[in-house]
Amino acid sequence: MPIITSRNHPLIKQLIKLESSAAYRRKTGLTLLDGEHLLQAYLAEAGVPQLVIMTQSYAEQNGYAPLAGGTCKTATVSDALFQLFSPVKTPAGILGLIAIPKPGQLFGEKIRYSVLLEDIQDPGNLGSIIRSAAAAGVEDVYLSKHCADAWSPKTLRAAMGAHFLLRMHELCNLPQVAQEFPGTVIATALGASVSLYEAVLTGAVAFAFGNEGAGLSDDLLQTVAAVVAIPMPGKTESLNVAAAAAICLFEKVRQDRIGAVCEAIEMRSHSSV
Amino acid sequence: MPIITSRNHPLIKQLIKLESSAAYRRKTGLTLLDGEHLLQAYLAEAGVPQLVIMTQSYAEQNGYAPLAGGTCKTATVSDALFQLFSPVKTPAGILGLIAIPKPGQLFGEKIRYSVLLEDIQDPGNLGSIIRSAAAAGVEDVYLSKHCADAWSPKTLRAAMGAHFLLRMHELCNLPQVAQEFPGTVIATALGASVSLYEAVLTGAVAFAFGNEGAGLSDDLLQTVAAVVAIPMPGKTESLNVAAAAAICLFEKVRQDRIGAVCEAIEMRSHSSV
Repeated sequence: MPIITSRNHPLIKQLIKLESSAAYRRKTGLTLLDGEHLLQAYLAEAGVPQLVIMTQSYAEQNGYAPLAGGTCKTATVSDALFQLFSPVKTPAGILGLIAIPKPGQLFGEKIRYSVLLEDIQDPGNLGSIIRSAAAAGVEDVYLSKHCADAWSPKTLRAAMGAHFLLRMHELCNLPQVAQEFPGTVIATALGASVSLYEAVLTGAVAFAFGNEGAGLSDDLLQTVAAVVAIPMPGKTESLNVAAAAAICLFEKVRQDRIGAVCEAIEMRSHSSV
Repeated sequence: MPIITSRNHPLIKQLIKLESSAAYRRKTGLTLLDGEHLLQAYLAEAGVPQLVIMTQSYAEQNGYAPLAGGTCKTATVSDALFQLFSPVKTPAGILGLIAIPKPGQLFGEKIRYSVLLEDIQDPGNLGSIIRSAAAAGVEDVYLSKHCADAWSPKTLRAAMGAHFLLRMHELCNLPQVAQEFPGTVIATALGASVSLYEAVLTGAVAFAFGNEGAGLSDDLLQTVAAVVAIPMPGKTESLNVAAAAAICLFEKVRQDRIGAVCEAIEMRSHSSV
């Protein structure tokens, strides 16, 4: 297999642009998956990458078609060239070029659990929230126009493959999504008078989380059913947004489990009557 | 006030070493606080910095003694020199040189809520956990020898001043801390048979969280009272360690609040008898 060694090769130029430009990723509908873990998550849940790019060293050590039983199209590039478009300083030497999955209609047939993200700036926070959401069983994530790019290599790395376990809706008008959401939309804000733990979270719920500095916009706050705060007994009232999201997302998990236990007990008591 | 413009000035050399070397920070017992927010948190909770360093631009715009009513010793350096030791790419232009607070004895007189951190690698995760811990009312954090440096500029920035709201014990022998802890030590591990939500978390509790990849060591797991898992209904069983820590830390907050309500009801029913 020929090894690409020229910086001027059209593929190299494309990969450099995909790594660095959110606008180019959006325009082409393509992005890069760095490393075996993300590639395997994509293969398991989403499909076959358009192309798998390897360094010469990786290809020599692992064979030329290590993933998907050889069904992926592959390209091999010199180790030095790979550095030009690798999102990390010490690359594993394998990277997938994929089409960004399209989420389909705004609301699926069964809406149970969703997240609205308004202007989350840090790709690490965004990725961590997507990862927590997937673990909590969230099905749909709606992102405002000014969120960090959900499909940037940094966000993808922080989410560890969670992108492929739920539907990601980008460039959303969140107040509209909140209004049309067929369930309860709950916002979180510091100093809200209702505690998260007093809110009833069983049934169809969407949580809205806001920007790291500014929180949620008034436009969005006005459309939600309830605004809750996480009670903080410590000397600070400050949580990282990804930490706050994890707490909220799993409080619904806890309440759903209790609901399931109560239902089971009720069914048993009915059947014994 | 004279403006330092030489790279060879002893202060500049010291600041560069403090920014880049965990070993030097540990040897000298000093670290740097970047930006007004961290400086204000330190002033409010811990004391007066040994020195406040400003860029010429910052000093001209904000006056030469903007913090602590002029009680801090200050130095002014050229904007170009400041870049050499600023932990961020676009510095605010103000930075504090502080003595790292000493936590005192391993266990305070009243132990209520603690966290054990084993080999947490990412400074952002470590800072986020410290921030969540302070918000949840944790009083003591015990760090293993191979944790990322708790007093690095990156960890400090992620914790947003939470370092000064609790006691940070570094270089700990965690199995020993767990054995001697006067309360219940609870570890978290994927696939543990007990759910976090079934564990009784009222009273004196310490949570142990492990390395991002490897989790907790067997040595530490053998000394804890219980191992719990966060139930994950989603298609993944994977959470960022800082997200997992936030969920656990605030589940105790929730249980403590319910406990307080039950006590109040009980007291009222007793007094009405």
